[in-house]
Amino acid sequence: MIEPGTKGLPPQIGPITLSEIGARGLSLLDGSLTLPAAILRQSALTANSATMRDFLATRDMLIAPHGKTTMAPQLYAMQVADGAWGITVSTVQHLAVCRRFGFGRVIIANQIVGHAEIDYLFETLAAAPELELYCLIDSVDGVARLVEGARRHGNAGRLNCLVEVGVAGGRAGCRSLADALAVAREAVAGGLALRGVEGFEGILADATAVDAFLDFICDTAAAIASENLFAAGRPVILTAGGSSFYDRVAVRLDPGRKIAAEVKIVSRSGCYLTHDSGVYAEAFAHLQQREPALAGTAFQPALLVFAYVQSRPEAGKAILSMGRRDVGFDAGMPVPMLVYREGRDAGPVPIAAGHSLAGLNDQHAHLALPEGSDLAVGDIVGFGVSHPCTTFDKWQLLFVVDDDWRVVGAIKTFF
Amino acid sequence: MIEPGTKGLPPQIGPITLSEIGARGLSLLDGSLTLPAAILRQSALTANSATMRDFLATRDMLIAPHGKTTMAPQLYAMQVADGAWGITVSTVQHLAVCRRFGFGRVIIANQIVGHAEIDYLFETLAAAPELELYCLIDSVDGVARLVEGARRHGNAGRLNCLVEVGVAGGRAGCRSLADALAVAREAVAGGLALRGVEGFEGILADATAVDAFLDFICDTAAAIASENLFAAGRPVILTAGGSSFYDRVAVRLDPGRKIAAEVKIVSRSGCYLTHDSGVYAEAFAHLQQREPALAGTAFQPALLVFAYVQSRPEAGKAILSMGRRDVGFDAGMPVPMLVYREGRDAGPVPIAAGHSLAGLNDQHAHLALPEGSDLAVGDIVGFGVSHPCTTFDKWQLLFVVDDDWRVVGAIKTFF
Repeated sequence: MIEPGTKGLPPQIGPITLSEIGARGLSLLDGSLTLPAAILRQSALTANSATMRDFLATRDMLIAPHGKTTMAPQLYAMQVADGAWGITVSTVQHLAVCRRFGFGRVIIANQIVGHAEIDYLFETLAAAPELELYCLIDSVDGVARLVEGARRHGNAGRLNCLVEVGVAGGRAGCRSLADALAVAREAVAGGLALRGVEGFEGILADATAVDAFLDFICDTAAAIASENLFAAGRPVILTAGGSSFYDRVAVRLDPGRKIAAEVKIVSRSGCYLTHDSGVYAEAFAHLQQREPALAGTAFQPALLVFAYVQSRPEAGKAILSMGRRDVGFDAGMPVPMLVYREGRDAGPVPIAAGHSLAGLNDQHAHLALPEGSDLAVGDIVGFGVSHPCTTFDKWQLLFVVDDDWRVVGAIKTFF
Repeated sequence: MIEPGTKGLPPQIGPITLSEIGARGLSLLDGSLTLPAAILRQSALTANSATMRDFLATRDMLIAPHGKTTMAPQLYAMQVADGAWGITVSTVQHLAVCRRFGFGRVIIANQIVGHAEIDYLFETLAAAPELELYCLIDSVDGVARLVEGARRHGNAGRLNCLVEVGVAGGRAGCRSLADALAVAREAVAGGLALRGVEGFEGILADATAVDAFLDFICDTAAAIASENLFAAGRPVILTAGGSSFYDRVAVRLDPGRKIAAEVKIVSRSGCYLTHDSGVYAEAFAHLQQREPALAGTAFQPALLVFAYVQSRPEAGKAILSMGRRDVGFDAGMPVPMLVYREGRDAGPVPIAAGHSLAGLNDQHAHLALPEGSDLAVGDIVGFGVSHPCTTFDKWQLLFVVDDDWRVVGAIKTFF
């Protein structure tokens, strides 16, 4: 049930159930939506999901898309329907969302260190015999905290652990083989199920650095395997995340090395589903250059934020009803792409060159206009985003539209 | 009812009603909270609210605190209990939240231009005869849209309008007296209730520029009054927002000018309640220098975000369980202030100099450590924030703690 006052929902509509929203005849084109609104283009979502499915079908790689991108179980369901092996998340609250909506294989791509968090992991495992849960470990101290927690609950072996490796200057993860082995030994000594090796390659600068890092993941797994530390009789998981280099993950985390009888290569890309108009659009262009199988395909930006022009105070400036609370700005400013004026346009049309976002306040956007722009109060501007994660997290409710910009459904997020 | 999976709430607790959270014996000090968590110090909130109340008591100024800062009706109620004249908001969804929780005097500090938004204003007024609603107008086009909407509902005179004025290079608002007068005439011709003049001084650089702008607000009001355009027999509202210069607003929007028989000066400061450890801490230091009545007082940072050290991958680096989705970073990085290690410390103690936040990913913080830092996996670090608005909007649930860091209540936000 969506309550009136929820951002995006015209308040005169609610309370309303999520599934009823698509039947209310709302449209971007007739003023029935309040703006700003976050819009997901259904055809783009469907096409992007299929593009990834088709790519994975040509590779010996699974995907556990990072659910923290969207925190939208409805979209997870779409990803699982298109073959996702599991869902990746970041926190125990994210795990709770996965459990609430019945997702049975979850990777928490973090080392969990708090008492309450660790209790929740083992309580959840105890309550759900079918749950397959993975988490990361990167220090002996961290393992000790998990082992201590497992002792309270008596089910250490239910928690699948992946040793995290990292690069100097990077984020978490063991920096050396020796450290990784020490962590692996500690986990096994404590009774945890050691299941694989993990890294996050997304922060690296180029494919060469990524390849070297993926080799480090493989070398670490091989060293752990040579000490016979992986849980017996079960596949070894090699997993890397990020939406910029999954082509390299597919090739370089090479199952041909025979680290174990069965090795699963798992990508955790989260941003392919909506794609974007900024950082990932650029990353995908590079990816296409590297990867012949993707040269002919194109992910489409599925996520747009629309706002009204609410003031034209100066010749070169428009103020719009969208702020830093409505759209991500951490990886580049949103990109004005479409403009629509009721009565003049049949639908949103590409906005003239020279319109650019000059700044965001909490609730306002400052749009710089080219000379002669006829943008007027009441016009609607559609923005592409850079980095979907930080736009999704600003909305509890996003609208799904068809190709005529009619609202055909709504997506609820759980941030 | 708070559902499991809500960020901040230990998932094993929920579902739980908001009012029950304070009775669950949670504490920052015993590992019963999951981190990151947003913490409001009750004593600081109470003191800050009282400090503003006492300051206003010495001035002929009212306050309609900007509710967009917190979007927390529980905190609005505290502000109203301490004498707030009304609540300011930014959008129709915010208005819906105010209506849901019974706030009867609301300023929407924006020009509302969309059909659905305008319909909601007039429908809400029709349904609530006691509601006193203000909104901004800054263009003839904008007024025309409101008047057209009012015609659909037949109650134009119920909508109180404030002419917005602004400065060159600034945000919305008429840049000239002539433009402001044209807008005022159009509003009156359309039957809207013209009630005052508004500006936002918070984006200006210093008190001199602020004073000049406040004079422009007064001059605009005087010009409108000289044409007898303000709604007859009702007070004229002069209002400026922002938490950095309300001392100047109190002095310079001078009721001594006798623009009307009754003039109300309304500040819209929203950030005083929680204060911060960054941009507003600095602004208040300037404010104290200008304002003798505040020289002996001190607002306290009431809002902190706590996170776990989850990885110590390199000598000079810790990775913490807090990211750009958990804390604002638009007006300066969060400031590490406190550290706590269970078993060693009786409570959070000031963190040693040299710890600083080097970067934020979506779900991780990179903390740079001074040489010899003994920060370890599992330690808790408390961060002060810069710009409360963009930290509040990252939480649906914040915990209220007493001076012993015990959770005594919870605050729900409606972003």
